[in-house]
Amino acid sequence: MPNAIITLTTDYGTNDHLVGTLKGVILKINPEATIVDITHNVAPFDLLDAALAIGSAYSYFPPRTIHVVVVDPGVGTERRPLLVTAENQYFVAPDNGVLSMIYEREENVVARNVTAAHYFLQPISKTFHGRDIFSPVGAHMARGDDWTKVGPEMAVKDLVRLKLTAAKLDEHGLNATVIATDGPFGNLVTNVDADDFLKLGYQRGQEVPVTVGGKEMKMKFVKTFSDVPVNEPLLYIDSRGHLGLAVNQDSFVAKYGVKPPAELFIPRAK
Amino acid sequence: MPNAIITLTTDYGTNDHLVGTLKGVILKINPEATIVDITHNVAPFDLLDAALAIGSAYSYFPPRTIHVVVVDPGVGTERRPLLVTAENQYFVAPDNGVLSMIYEREENVVARNVTAAHYFLQPISKTFHGRDIFSPVGAHMARGDDWTKVGPEMAVKDLVRLKLTAAKLDEHGLNATVIATDGPFGNLVTNVDADDFLKLGYQRGQEVPVTVGGKEMKMKFVKTFSDVPVNEPLLYIDSRGHLGLAVNQDSFVAKYGVKPPAELFIPRAK
Amino acid sequence: MPNAIITLTTDYGTNDHLVGTLKGVILKINPEATIVDITHNVAPFDLLDAALAIGSAYSYFPPRTIHVVVVDPGVGTERRPLLVTAENQYFVAPDNGVLSMIYEREENVVARNVTAAHYFLQPISKTFHGRDIFSPVGAHMARGDDWTKVGPEMAVKDLVRLKLTAAKLDEHGLNATVIATDGPFGNLVTNVDADDFLKLGYQRGQEVPVTVGGKEMKMKFVKTFSDVPVNEPLLYIDSRGHLGLAVNQDSFVAKYGVKPPAELFIPRAK
Repeated sequence: MPNAIITLTTDYGTNDHLVGTLKGVILKINPEATIVDITHNVAPFDLLDAALAIGSAYSYFPPRTIHVVVVDPGVGTERRPLLVTAENQYFVAPDNGVLSMIYEREENVVARNVTAAHYFLQPISKTFHGRDIFSPVGAHMARGDDWTKVGPEMAVKDLVRLKLTAAKLDEHGLNATVIATDGPFGNLVTNVDADDFLKLGYQRGQEVPVTVGGKEMKMKFVKTFSDVPVNEPLLYIDSRGHLGLAVNQDSFVAKYGVKPPAELFIPRAK
Repeated sequence: MPNAIITLTTDYGTNDHLVGTLKGVILKINPEATIVDITHNVAPFDLLDAALAIGSAYSYFPPRTIHVVVVDPGVGTERRPLLVTAENQYFVAPDNGVLSMIYEREENVVARNVTAAHYFLQPISKTFHGRDIFSPVGAHMARGDDWTKVGPEMAVKDLVRLKLTAAKLDEHGLNATVIATDGPFGNLVTNVDADDFLKLGYQRGQEVPVTVGGKEMKMKFVKTFSDVPVNEPLLYIDSRGHLGLAVNQDSFVAKYGVKPPAELFIPRAK
Repeated sequence: MPNAIITLTTDYGTNDHLVGTLKGVILKINPEATIVDITHNVAPFDLLDAALAIGSAYSYFPPRTIHVVVVDPGVGTERRPLLVTAENQYFVAPDNGVLSMIYEREENVVARNVTAAHYFLQPISKTFHGRDIFSPVGAHMARGDDWTKVGPEMAVKDLVRLKLTAAKLDEHGLNATVIATDGPFGNLVTNVDADDFLKLGYQRGQEVPVTVGGKEMKMKFVKTFSDVPVNEPLLYIDSRGHLGLAVNQDSFVAKYGVKPPAELFIPRAK
């Protein structure tokens, strides 16, 4: 399996040797690996931020990609290292919820508890399992090693999952949450699926009353940013298929001071 | 064409899944591509910043490199996606001026309006054409696809160009502009070509009176930073062949509070 | 030698074309090179920060890796460009101390003064030797060129070394220094080897009195972060084998306002 792809998602930042060290470990085991950074700027210890990053990116990668996700506040404790397969991709991560979006979206998830110590870098530190456990396991899998040999299968229902708050649609409207911002643009990402928003009855081009982070506002529901004048707010369906709030060529976060995890309410159209 | 090189220049930042997603899209189409980041920290929506980044880097890459440039405040509107060739390299970008420095420097520019929808990721979102249009087109070109099939040729004179202010030399001296800073060092980059500066008549080692951002200063014209004492300002010809202002082992921006787009005047030598 | 690995450690930041340009230069000479970023966020001109970054990462890379290190406040002066070998790896860097940790740890260090101008990018600028000297030399070495031809051998004792303050153990206790922080986590890295700390006589689980940055504190000596409650401080042996100070799921730097190069004293156990 030449040129296997390994992605990395961590909260290590890019200011020192940490990410370089992970890559050295991988390339020493598997010099042919193609390593791709998803991001190393997950907010420190933020499992939801990590879950969103890998959950938004993995489906764009080719079959047999190995995704190594290391946001690991419980490093050195008994939390289990996982090797998960779903949709013909692999995920190596601690069992702390960072793979929650994969469990939610994919049907044929199989998980193993990684126990095969011959894959680990010895001696195993107590504080840098990205280097000593997760990266080497990913590198070996990328070489085509038999993944069923890494350790015993686990019941998927026993895997740790984050509570991903779902938007709720009732007779008054939609109660939802701002879950992230989008890149450096200051757009708000919500937990509202396009389908749920459309059930409210608004049409493209229509003004929509929105209460977000305690602020009552009106903004047009449009297709793209430049459908409203520069500096005006808008509602749109973002590139992940969620409802988004943005300002044309400006930052919603900076302009209105609203950040995740703000609450959001949109009434049904009259 | 094995191991084709694709560069990326965007304003997506590196804090979430956006750049990782672009790379997944590229590698799914073309697993052999070598992907190189120019920068993902172009100031959001800043076309001039993007034009300088790609314009300063492209000529160092080997023939047949494909440069994907996505700073795209008009995403989802009628602005056209371009595939441009010049100097045996390829550029995939929106027609909004981000390729202005290539048009200015290269003689044999040929441009096509990318319309061949079979290269796009379907369904095409209204807000993430980096993922759905520009990256997949770049990935297909890197596979050696026939670039004349992407869409109709466009007249080069019709391409959108940024107004790049030129420095003006008259009988009094040189009126110019600070156009950027250099890396994290706080050096100022100007729009003054070395040749134009040298016409003023100063010699290396000479003190030069400079008015920059409203401040009157004197600084030596030297070859490199350490030709003046630590913390002293200097004029030099930078690595792009432009006149630069710097402070030895310190930041001109931080020390004197001058930033782009400050105005600059240097009188003729007496 | 297919697929040679070249690592980059610089203070160029990632906001403009600088790093992209280095990579273009390398790939033009050696399209098969695998380029790995250690970090480009070394504090500007900070030789110790650079020495720690490359010194902490290199040993995880496979044999024959070429490490290009460019933190170079003396660019354009007479300071010499080096090609150093140690432990079957190569290092290309200015002779200003950035390789100090390699000299300290490795036994068979051989150094050459790089003078073979046919490896350089012409014309050589006075301010961007990363582009014109260090990267092209690295790229040629990665192709398997004869490294003894780059220039004359130098006596290792003549190489510039940083003064790396050593921790001192006396009858009262250990006098040491905080030398860095670890990633974005705000952990403190010290110059205390695990062995020296253990000579003080503390056991795992014991409370240790520590004076750091003028603050007197007590914290438990444990194996990993979560061996103390969330938000509590701790002493541990970090993944480099040094004594570290951290706060479980929080930042020691932010919580206690202590930063490198703070002084540290730990008395002998009673």
